[in-house]
Amino acid sequence: MRPLRLGMVGGGPGAGIAPAHRRAARLDDRFVVVAGAFSRNADANRQMGEELRIAPDRVYADFSAMAAAEASRADGIECVAVVTPNDTHAPASLAFIRNGIDVICDKPMANSLAEAIAVEKAAAERGVLFALTHNYSAYPMVAEARHQVQTGALGAIRVVAVEYAQGTRNRLLEAEGDAKMAWRVNSAVAGPSTVLGDIGTHAHHLMRRITGLEIATLSAELSAMVPGRAADDNAQVNMRLGGGARGMMWCSMVAAGNGHGLRIRVFGEKASLHWDQERPDELHLRADNAPYRTLRRGEAYLCEAARHLSRTKTGNPEGYFGAFANLYADAAEVIGARREGRFPNPNAASFATARDGVIAMKFIEAAVASHRNGGAWTDATLAG
Amino acid sequence: MRPLRLGMVGGGPGAGIAPAHRRAARLDDRFVVVAGAFSRNADANRQMGEELRIAPDRVYADFSAMAAAEASRADGIECVAVVTPNDTHAPASLAFIRNGIDVICDKPMANSLAEAIAVEKAAAERGVLFALTHNYSAYPMVAEARHQVQTGALGAIRVVAVEYAQGTRNRLLEAEGDAKMAWRVNSAVAGPSTVLGDIGTHAHHLMRRITGLEIATLSAELSAMVPGRAADDNAQVNMRLGGGARGMMWCSMVAAGNGHGLRIRVFGEKASLHWDQERPDELHLRADNAPYRTLRRGEAYLCEAARHLSRTKTGNPEGYFGAFANLYADAAEVIGARREGRFPNPNAASFATARDGVIAMKFIEAAVASHRNGGAWTDATLAG
Amino acid sequence: MRPLRLGMVGGGPGAGIAPAHRRAARLDDRFVVVAGAFSRNADANRQMGEELRIAPDRVYADFSAMAAAEASRADGIECVAVVTPNDTHAPASLAFIRNGIDVICDKPMANSLAEAIAVEKAAAERGVLFALTHNYSAYPMVAEARHQVQTGALGAIRVVAVEYAQGTRNRLLEAEGDAKMAWRVNSAVAGPSTVLGDIGTHAHHLMRRITGLEIATLSAELSAMVPGRAADDNAQVNMRLGGGARGMMWCSMVAAGNGHGLRIRVFGEKASLHWDQERPDELHLRADNAPYRTLRRGEAYLCEAARHLSRTKTGNPEGYFGAFANLYADAAEVIGARREGRFPNPNAASFATARDGVIAMKFIEAAVASHRNGGAWTDATLAG
Amino acid sequence: MRPLRLGMVGGGPGAGIAPAHRRAARLDDRFVVVAGAFSRNADANRQMGEELRIAPDRVYADFSAMAAAEASRADGIECVAVVTPNDTHAPASLAFIRNGIDVICDKPMANSLAEAIAVEKAAAERGVLFALTHNYSAYPMVAEARHQVQTGALGAIRVVAVEYAQGTRNRLLEAEGDAKMAWRVNSAVAGPSTVLGDIGTHAHHLMRRITGLEIATLSAELSAMVPGRAADDNAQVNMRLGGGARGMMWCSMVAAGNGHGLRIRVFGEKASLHWDQERPDELHLRADNAPYRTLRRGEAYLCEAARHLSRTKTGNPEGYFGAFANLYADAAEVIGARREGRFPNPNAASFATARDGVIAMKFIEAAVASHRNGGAWTDATLAG
Repeated sequence: MRPLRLGMVGGGPGAGIAPAHRRAARLDDRFVVVAGAFSRNADANRQMGEELRIAPDRVYADFSAMAAAEASRADGIECVAVVTPNDTHAPASLAFIRNGIDVICDKPMANSLAEAIAVEKAAAERGVLFALTHNYSAYPMVAEARHQVQTGALGAIRVVAVEYAQGTRNRLLEAEGDAKMAWRVNSAVAGPSTVLGDIGTHAHHLMRRITGLEIATLSAELSAMVPGRAADDNAQVNMRLGGGARGMMWCSMVAAGNGHGLRIRVFGEKASLHWDQERPDELHLRADNAPYRTLRRGEAYLCEAARHLSRTKTGNPEGYFGAFANLYADAAEVIGARREGRFPNPNAASFATARDGVIAMKFIEAAVASHRNGGAWTDATLAG
Repeated sequence: MRPLRLGMVGGGPGAGIAPAHRRAARLDDRFVVVAGAFSRNADANRQMGEELRIAPDRVYADFSAMAAAEASRADGIECVAVVTPNDTHAPASLAFIRNGIDVICDKPMANSLAEAIAVEKAAAERGVLFALTHNYSAYPMVAEARHQVQTGALGAIRVVAVEYAQGTRNRLLEAEGDAKMAWRVNSAVAGPSTVLGDIGTHAHHLMRRITGLEIATLSAELSAMVPGRAADDNAQVNMRLGGGARGMMWCSMVAAGNGHGLRIRVFGEKASLHWDQERPDELHLRADNAPYRTLRRGEAYLCEAARHLSRTKTGNPEGYFGAFANLYADAAEVIGARREGRFPNPNAASFATARDGVIAMKFIEAAVASHRNGGAWTDATLAG
Repeated sequence: MRPLRLGMVGGGPGAGIAPAHRRAARLDDRFVVVAGAFSRNADANRQMGEELRIAPDRVYADFSAMAAAEASRADGIECVAVVTPNDTHAPASLAFIRNGIDVICDKPMANSLAEAIAVEKAAAERGVLFALTHNYSAYPMVAEARHQVQTGALGAIRVVAVEYAQGTRNRLLEAEGDAKMAWRVNSAVAGPSTVLGDIGTHAHHLMRRITGLEIATLSAELSAMVPGRAADDNAQVNMRLGGGARGMMWCSMVAAGNGHGLRIRVFGEKASLHWDQERPDELHLRADNAPYRTLRRGEAYLCEAARHLSRTKTGNPEGYFGAFANLYADAAEVIGARREGRFPNPNAASFATARDGVIAMKFIEAAVASHRNGGAWTDATLAG
Repeated sequence: MRPLRLGMVGGGPGAGIAPAHRRAARLDDRFVVVAGAFSRNADANRQMGEELRIAPDRVYADFSAMAAAEASRADGIECVAVVTPNDTHAPASLAFIRNGIDVICDKPMANSLAEAIAVEKAAAERGVLFALTHNYSAYPMVAEARHQVQTGALGAIRVVAVEYAQGTRNRLLEAEGDAKMAWRVNSAVAGPSTVLGDIGTHAHHLMRRITGLEIATLSAELSAMVPGRAADDNAQVNMRLGGGARGMMWCSMVAAGNGHGLRIRVFGEKASLHWDQERPDELHLRADNAPYRTLRRGEAYLCEAARHLSRTKTGNPEGYFGAFANLYADAAEVIGARREGRFPNPNAASFATARDGVIAMKFIEAAVASHRNGGAWTDATLAG
């Protein structure tokens, strides 16, 4: 299978997440980057084009020009990766969608619920893929966790505890010249909640991915813990979930020494599951009347979806690169299948969808509303 | 030093926590049990007296008779351990306090704030010790954690996450003939919140012990997760703490497969600390710009208070028996010092005080009030 | 059941292991110390007698006087604990055995195979108990490990890896005034191998206890790693075990930062088991085609022998005190049964026997011989 | 920097390690595969060529034809990866070396010491790179471990314990149609020791990489533990190392349930270090008189060599793909520098050299000789 032609919006020199996208695209040899609008700075843009050996005429000044030009080429890009700051996610995605080009977009999907709905609608109308890179949900053992829930190993879910708490932004970096932090605390760029938009959406998607439960109502406390910070950096959210379950989410940028900090625990009437992104190849299943069990990536006893997301034998940690590449490989499979007029591999589903992105924006808006209303229980359903 | 003469109220055959109290009293040879009112059932009472080799005339039908009789003997008990269901804690304590006998009481201190205040007042007036057995706070590494906070290793505290979540009562045991569970879900016996009275007070005291912070206001969600249960078995409490810190507490009886489940994490501006009762000999200190550190019980680099609570060299786990015995040894030291007219060892402070017990009752009442009021932020200070 | 009257040889002020013996005797209320020959130093001897509230006429100058006098008293000791340096283990044990007094002795049993055989023979002839305190083998999860092997969970054993490696004696303590280390490196007191006599016998017994396998031949390398040290402090032993299995033992006093350092892994044709004294409440069972399993102390699914050795519910670590007390409780049960003319609880078997001690002495002598012979494979069977 | 043109010998459909090599070459975009002799089976060879989109005229029937043809093309390969069974490593490497083409070769270097020396000599004479893929030694935290030893954090090394023990070949796979196992137990293909050639060389290199110590003499026990197996599958090697240190190596194919199983511990006079391939982002440093420390990949406090081998921030596990890619990236850097006439990055040194491969072959031959000689201590130095 030949690799798909990929374009990239964002990801100039010094960008944070773009190298991870490029390695993910490359690892399984399913994409080759052939065009880009990497930076609004012309020099930086050209420099990145050269580093990636892109033909100079395919290094564009902005995403609009790129979408138009590439759509008109016979050898134009088949897919674009959008890896810009948050406020460009929706407009850039729309530009490519409208030109019939499939989109892989970093999270969050948009800066408002309304924007997200517009992107979802456009993609549906144009019949292109909109894939959101909640890369932490693309680990094999997350698929296994979902499978365990679906097949009843836990029984009815009673309590979910998810957290994504880090400490690396536990001082006023935005006043120390940190450009990434500067836009993250600027709600015009980062959206209505800094901490929920940046990392809360990962925790939110992971919870939904594994449990299949949606939030009915929530009670949120958002705080700015670093003195002088103009945006929230700590969120505590209590949730009432579908089926009567309770949930707790903690997202933080001030959790000193907490490492990566994304982990989830799901407690059911029969057993619980425990997963930590820092040890992603292990899934723990625990009940009170039986030995604790640890399931491991790469083993034959795992579900088909987990095995689909794994490349090497157990014990060799695949890590972050493997999970991120799963998203790209699955997107390539789905895009390739449509282009070839065949059914895709049904397991090629590790990426988040436009619907997932829309629900996440609703979650953020409900949390902000609850916080402003003294922690009042607030509807988080799309109908609401 | 001769052992103190100890009496016991409660702790008949089949009782839960009483054998732990007796082993704790015995381990360091600071107490000998010489009297008791073990059970309201006369046969059970006599049987336990024989098992413990108590003189028959010192096995009493009830705590009132015991308090009066022992107070009048020259060789009467010097201290009593109260290990009954919750509703007897305060009345039994009062009976002995009024007879000038020191009291070691299981948690919670009382079934209401008013009761707790009455006990505190009586003990102060009579000049006797009231020691509450928050045994999980008596581990050496909890003392070290407190020391690390006090000496500034974490800087100002930003977020505290404490939880005590177990799964062993994750079905309707009270309908299956479980006598202990039956009284625990009966608010007349167990107090206003089942889960907070039973285990929440341990989490609450651990948080206060380590951080030195008090709760200003809280927002609570109390739930009965097991179908058919008449009392709360799951509590999620968001807290605003002294100094502007935020806190989260989760206490649960439905956390399937979660083992013992008491752990705490404290995040400050410089570093965090992490402690888990299942691995009590380890204290983790973590910062983002330095290697993670694990401090271990029994080492010479620990603070004096931690070394005071430790008996054996590092690597030999002292565990639950060691911690529980610390409470008794420290109570014996304080009681012995007063009787001998000397200053006690200043490190003999691992037990909780009457004031701690009073604050815990206020916490429970505030949490119940917040929950009934839709999670509204509620004052939890004693002034409030 | 009334406690047995216990005497103690050794254990004067500052002694290492004696307080552990005393706490172990006390924890389950099965013994009361009423006599002793605690120290050869008369002042220290008297001082310890006072501390333990022993009648002055039962504090003896030496074990011979004590054995004779106690045997002639109607209320004489029923059992003695020998907790002296190694060279006194056999002579003191013999003195009490010959007076019909049961013996609980610290390891190693003796300083030579011949001595050990003499003690075993004397105990058998006199019909008294000789119990050796390999306390690390008395943990509940060691009993469960043994049960798993016996019931075939591992299949035939292929490889055993046991180690007991510590770092606390990783400098020349014996030249710094450390009295305990001074006698440990003196072969006249400590026996033919310092490291094997002190800690190697624990590793050896643990391996035999769990696997049921005996060493056929061994190849040993004994080294003195600390410059200036006159005795071995590091041992590497390759073993050919019964049934064709292979074994490796590493014992060391120079393993800097290794904590307590006793752990064992047993690999069979079907699965392996893993146990570490620093986390004694967990037993890991692992196979390649199934989830890893962790069995936990206190659970109902454990074997009867494991449940017999456990006092509290899972999650509350019982630790070192619990295990050491198991030895004493089981010895009390066996002694009590004989005195009462009844069968003992068949699970009261956590202590090591005279036979175990004899086999350990053979192991040490074979290892020393192999080392002196350039690592030649050397017979370690008692017949050999 | 444009990617180097890479050829591949071996790695046909179903091959084990070849996909890892290809992903490693691709991850950092430093190589592109343009030629190959993938399989001796013509169909399989052609099929793999198509899968990798290689021009049909550059898919060769054997490595000799490939070496000659590619050397004569202006756009010929600049480097070759040899990923065949062991017996082809040396002959294939020689063919390319003699044509001036740089070689990246899977381990072991050869099937005999003599062969290995011949390859080393040829590469030196022709001035080309011979890089051996001991990928497990290319983790960032292995570089940090080496740095800690070199800068004296451990003091003089006293004991090294390294092991690589797996259980996945713990039954007679070679009799069940497993083609890879069939050649591994055939000494004509796999060399003089199955277990040492396959995995022992990884353990051996890791030990040398971190400690800088060479083996002086060794005493080995090699065993065939699976009934019916014609080759060794378990090795226990005691070592006397440079500077008087002692070493232990255990390599096994029969360690049921042991996962990947490569780990190392190094004990010095001041502290020890501990590293496990299954948690490769952590390096543990432990001393007896200080808190244990855990160093983590991605942190600024690590040595330059460790930071050089790392791509993402701490907490996102880079795993196996990252480490393997380090070897390829460093080889590309060294090759590129020579071709461009510049000095390479001095940190580009994660691959093993021809000298490392030669020393490993001497190790294997000494171990086999010792075993055949009853475990006699045997010289393992190259002079010997």
